[in-house]
Amino acid sequence: MAGNTFGQLFRITTFGESHGVAIGVILDGCPAQLPIDLDFIQSELDKRRPGQSKITTQRKESDTVQVLSGTFEGKSTGTPIAMLIPNEDQRSKDYSHNTDVYRPSHADYTYDAKYGIRDHRGGGRSSARETAARVAAGAIAKLLLKQYGVEVFAHVSAVGQIQAPNLAQDDIAALLSIREDNIARCADPATAHQMIEFIDSVRKDGDTVGGKVSCIIKNCPVGLGEPVFDKLHADLGKAMLSINAVHGFEYGSGFSGSEMRGSEHNDIFLANEGQPKTLTNFSGGIQGGISNGMEINFTVAFKPVATIMHNQQTINAAGEAAEIKGKGRHDPCVVPRAVVIVEAMAALVLADHLLRNKTSRL
Amino acid sequence: MAGNTFGQLFRITTFGESHGVAIGVILDGCPAQLPIDLDFIQSELDKRRPGQSKITTQRKESDTVQVLSGTFEGKSTGTPIAMLIPNEDQRSKDYSHNTDVYRPSHADYTYDAKYGIRDHRGGGRSSARETAARVAAGAIAKLLLKQYGVEVFAHVSAVGQIQAPNLAQDDIAALLSIREDNIARCADPATAHQMIEFIDSVRKDGDTVGGKVSCIIKNCPVGLGEPVFDKLHADLGKAMLSINAVHGFEYGSGFSGSEMRGSEHNDIFLANEGQPKTLTNFSGGIQGGISNGMEINFTVAFKPVATIMHNQQTINAAGEAAEIKGKGRHDPCVVPRAVVIVEAMAALVLADHLLRNKTSRL
Amino acid sequence: MAGNTFGQLFRITTFGESHGVAIGVILDGCPAQLPIDLDFIQSELDKRRPGQSKITTQRKESDTVQVLSGTFEGKSTGTPIAMLIPNEDQRSKDYSHNTDVYRPSHADYTYDAKYGIRDHRGGGRSSARETAARVAAGAIAKLLLKQYGVEVFAHVSAVGQIQAPNLAQDDIAALLSIREDNIARCADPATAHQMIEFIDSVRKDGDTVGGKVSCIIKNCPVGLGEPVFDKLHADLGKAMLSINAVHGFEYGSGFSGSEMRGSEHNDIFLANEGQPKTLTNFSGGIQGGISNGMEINFTVAFKPVATIMHNQQTINAAGEAAEIKGKGRHDPCVVPRAVVIVEAMAALVLADHLLRNKTSRL
Amino acid sequence: MAGNTFGQLFRITTFGESHGVAIGVILDGCPAQLPIDLDFIQSELDKRRPGQSKITTQRKESDTVQVLSGTFEGKSTGTPIAMLIPNEDQRSKDYSHNTDVYRPSHADYTYDAKYGIRDHRGGGRSSARETAARVAAGAIAKLLLKQYGVEVFAHVSAVGQIQAPNLAQDDIAALLSIREDNIARCADPATAHQMIEFIDSVRKDGDTVGGKVSCIIKNCPVGLGEPVFDKLHADLGKAMLSINAVHGFEYGSGFSGSEMRGSEHNDIFLANEGQPKTLTNFSGGIQGGISNGMEINFTVAFKPVATIMHNQQTINAAGEAAEIKGKGRHDPCVVPRAVVIVEAMAALVLADHLLRNKTSRL
Repeated sequence: MAGNTFGQLFRITTFGESHGVAIGVILDGCPAQLPIDLDFIQSELDKRRPGQSKITTQRKESDTVQVLSGTFEGKSTGTPIAMLIPNEDQRSKDYSHNTDVYRPSHADYTYDAKYGIRDHRGGGRSSARETAARVAAGAIAKLLLKQYGVEVFAHVSAVGQIQAPNLAQDDIAALLSIREDNIARCADPATAHQMIEFIDSVRKDGDTVGGKVSCIIKNCPVGLGEPVFDKLHADLGKAMLSINAVHGFEYGSGFSGSEMRGSEHNDIFLANEGQPKTLTNFSGGIQGGISNGMEINFTVAFKPVATIMHNQQTINAAGEAAEIKGKGRHDPCVVPRAVVIVEAMAALVLADHLLRNKTSRL
Repeated sequence: MAGNTFGQLFRITTFGESHGVAIGVILDGCPAQLPIDLDFIQSELDKRRPGQSKITTQRKESDTVQVLSGTFEGKSTGTPIAMLIPNEDQRSKDYSHNTDVYRPSHADYTYDAKYGIRDHRGGGRSSARETAARVAAGAIAKLLLKQYGVEVFAHVSAVGQIQAPNLAQDDIAALLSIREDNIARCADPATAHQMIEFIDSVRKDGDTVGGKVSCIIKNCPVGLGEPVFDKLHADLGKAMLSINAVHGFEYGSGFSGSEMRGSEHNDIFLANEGQPKTLTNFSGGIQGGISNGMEINFTVAFKPVATIMHNQQTINAAGEAAEIKGKGRHDPCVVPRAVVIVEAMAALVLADHLLRNKTSRL
Repeated sequence: MAGNTFGQLFRITTFGESHGVAIGVILDGCPAQLPIDLDFIQSELDKRRPGQSKITTQRKESDTVQVLSGTFEGKSTGTPIAMLIPNEDQRSKDYSHNTDVYRPSHADYTYDAKYGIRDHRGGGRSSARETAARVAAGAIAKLLLKQYGVEVFAHVSAVGQIQAPNLAQDDIAALLSIREDNIARCADPATAHQMIEFIDSVRKDGDTVGGKVSCIIKNCPVGLGEPVFDKLHADLGKAMLSINAVHGFEYGSGFSGSEMRGSEHNDIFLANEGQPKTLTNFSGGIQGGISNGMEINFTVAFKPVATIMHNQQTINAAGEAAEIKGKGRHDPCVVPRAVVIVEAMAALVLADHLLRNKTSRL
Repeated sequence: MAGNTFGQLFRITTFGESHGVAIGVILDGCPAQLPIDLDFIQSELDKRRPGQSKITTQRKESDTVQVLSGTFEGKSTGTPIAMLIPNEDQRSKDYSHNTDVYRPSHADYTYDAKYGIRDHRGGGRSSARETAARVAAGAIAKLLLKQYGVEVFAHVSAVGQIQAPNLAQDDIAALLSIREDNIARCADPATAHQMIEFIDSVRKDGDTVGGKVSCIIKNCPVGLGEPVFDKLHADLGKAMLSINAVHGFEYGSGFSGSEMRGSEHNDIFLANEGQPKTLTNFSGGIQGGISNGMEINFTVAFKPVATIMHNQQTINAAGEAAEIKGKGRHDPCVVPRAVVIVEAMAALVLADHLLRNKTSRL
């Protein structure tokens, strides 16, 4: 109930603080006999790793994952898979001045108010460092999805007011190649260039900026999602909203759908052989909370990172006025590193619903 | 796991089909000794009831709730509270022609694909009629919140492209009075007038239109929400996305926050006595997933209702071309009736986190 | 968390008080397309029904079950199956004198201490009447098990010190016929006769007596049970211990196994074709928490019913001395009616693990 | 659902194989501000540690625990507490001959049948080595209980047919001193002597023997336990039955209660000031599933360890006859080391219900 567990049948529990010994995750419920490709897990972590480019935090962490249990001769055994990521660059002295002062728009005050005690070093448990554990588990979810042909692809669709055009094509391998070719992780090279310039200028200002990540899921089997509370998009939404700094989620027609009429919004079924298809896809691949076999798509809005290199007025734990200036190593814009976190959480939701759906009928 | 349960400690399980004998809910985990005001529960249901105005469906249901268990001499006893709402106006013959045909943007196809069997009468379990059970349970959640002084207020903030202005004041009783004074349930009388005109014209076209519901929560205690996966806004988001026809959720600065810089977005703490306050509230009352005592606010986007009175091309269960024309009794715009559903789900999330927070420290 | 839910994937939530409007159950997670035989459900309830013989309570309840949802044209649809059993003979005046007095070895005091409020009519929620809801859901679990050929058979193996001999044969249909031929529900006619005589004499003394129910499960698929905390026998044990008046559970060699040596206790595998078998079955069909395909067997100990027709010293809510005399209509010995409750709970555990096991490997 | 998690609010998830890198546990839900005494945790592990006396397995493991997260300056922070116990003495070559052969009354066959893959080294996940993780978490549960004055004491009450007399006194500190003074962990010195002699002779025979552990809980607050499925004794029973080799559980009057009459079994309330007490305690401190403030007591039956040093007939994975001889390092009798495991699981159940009970009333 303390909320460090996600998923029902394919279920993760994460632990660890930003500047503690290590962070990690236990994945329980991974079906036996799944090939566990350690290199793939590490390559996913490398996409989230700090210090990977000039537009990310310069904290140095190799984020090397260790698998402690649950695999045998390269395959899952059905028992819990525990993974550990030691913290290496724990310059917690950077944070010693924060002991008693509440950083604006961080979780310092709320943790203190809730628990009456707080590991103030680098945000402790509230640090986005926790998401590395999600990425490791999400990589195994992707390995499971691969067995079913499901593909998950996220990309930076906006940085500040710079909006990327719609995806030019739908081949995932090609899109991935374009995206990984630029440090903004945008699927459009020209927009990527603008985004990088902009983030870099924001960084030089000692400021930060928000952005959006969009995600598509291809070849999702029909029937995933439970129809009332655990609708597929509701679980995707919760997964995304649980990522640090996320302030909004929309799928299919999203917010713009609220301005449409039924006669334009309805997705007309096409008579054809095989699995039904629709002419449009305002439903975003999900109807009544259940996947319909069309492409699933959604977008996630990230607020700007709260740590800025400016002087800011704030208060201390006694409620007195205080001043703060960010001294840690932080990201000017979180979305390039968030892409793989969005994919990981989406993969975890899909893997969970794939398993859940195995019991929906005799 | 079949997903008909919501909440952890204050937990509801709903049941029932649109055109079955009854729908209902079991609420487990309601603390003992809470006064259970039946008239209040019924009055909440009356706000969701079909047939309440010219801009809602004309299905006739009194939606009279029966409490079957869990109360004694007007108070909760700590045992499960079961509530039953019999279905009265089950003109299922209206739906007899839908047996085999998939209505566009409904859940007919996905239910069939998932379960291989489907109660086709009026959408069966996928009908928004299920939300009456949520409203009944949400009313009890509100009674619990009342003990803590927490107030939840939702209102129609947009219909199609008609957007209401920001709330003119923050007295909940006054806002409620304005809202209930118009059948659009908008908190601005002038906008309400436009909305009603517009919905009525859409209705006459045999069409439907989407809209938005916004919600504020006042006097929320500091400390609600669990910091990693079960962040308060993540659970609110899931709750909202589980409501029929919802395609988007944002809180605080929401999607517009993705365009902002940290230096403008950060909510500066004000030195003062008592509970800390912030100058702005882009955080929407939640920081690090935990309530900070400021007003919580969020907005929910609803797509247009899928049932329209036009001829539509579609397919049948064999994949063959078919034609369909809506004949049931449906809403031209769902948001006026959705207001109380949004409030109910928000109240359920808050009640759950109120209880969960009781164990956060020694 | 309030504990009125049992099971993970095949999951029931019960509600209702002994002398309220009704009791009932929601079964969530029943796979779609299961034929739901209402007559069978009712026949199971009839075996638990009060007033069925001279050695049971004389409370008159037809225990007629109503299915409110989740089925369509005789089959499950995958949505929640709600079942209602109205209370008919609620002579709550029999209990009016108990308002303030704590009956010895009942739950009156502990409910009061826990909740500060108590529906004192007939034990309220603590009454074994709640188990009728379990039997209704358990009947559907049996219908699911039937699809897999699994058979569950329980019988009265002891009343007081009268112990039945081991089962004379292993044909379930034959055993069932013998058992239902006597009101003690013992699988040995001669012992049944003694038991009935004894219970009747105890009843005439205004007293009660304990007993034991034993259960076997045949044709259980290999592989059910999760290996660490949710071992198959651990879940069976919890299920049995959750039945009113149960004070002990043992499976396989049970308590006598604690006196044995490994060299006598080990079940030697037999070389043969097909599914492995063992020479002995001290493991009770479960090894490492997982079913091994041999017959599962366990025994449940019931204490004597607490309501006796004698004068008893006790206290009232103020802690003052008081006197009490049982006036309600109660069972002199609970085991003949408990047989079908034991079967129902066993069936629920097996159905749940059948579904859970569907995701154990790729 | 894969069953490696125990508890609802005070919740543990364990991981690790007998001969893998490490075993460990995540404890989620520990309230903030609890002093975490590492020396105490280690001292609990030392009581379970292999190689501690001549009557335990000679496997050498220091079982040194590392706390990876969730504490700050000696106190819990409300975030997950992860603990790691590296495996040191992994002589897995001892098990290389077991690759393909099913050891009688072990979990080799059932794991293989369930998962189709098995870490055969030392039993892998099915090894009782997993219980070290439970003891580490149970130690923290005890630290929480200590804040409420609750004391948990278990002891060896039988080895084979050697039965210890009833506890001679009820001072826990004194009992603990007597128990820890002998390697059998019996609370009666004379019986302990017999038990040690007997276990040693069994060991010399290359055989093993079963036994019983009894447990008392003092100063348990009134009101713990949820009344229907999650009765306090049902959760204790499940906890105990989830320990390797346990075949039976009874509480209060237990199996002997099934032979008694209500008139002798009923626990008469005594008129007095303060918290009600009963003359007898056949209820074992629990009525209607809820603690009543009297001493809680229960007994757990352990079968003999399956690994013996004799030649045994068995089969291999192909179903062919094979012979096996135990070569690993195992316990001749598991109960002396099991005492602290029983206490740990009892403490985990109580801690969980302590937290759960915080929300039972307004």
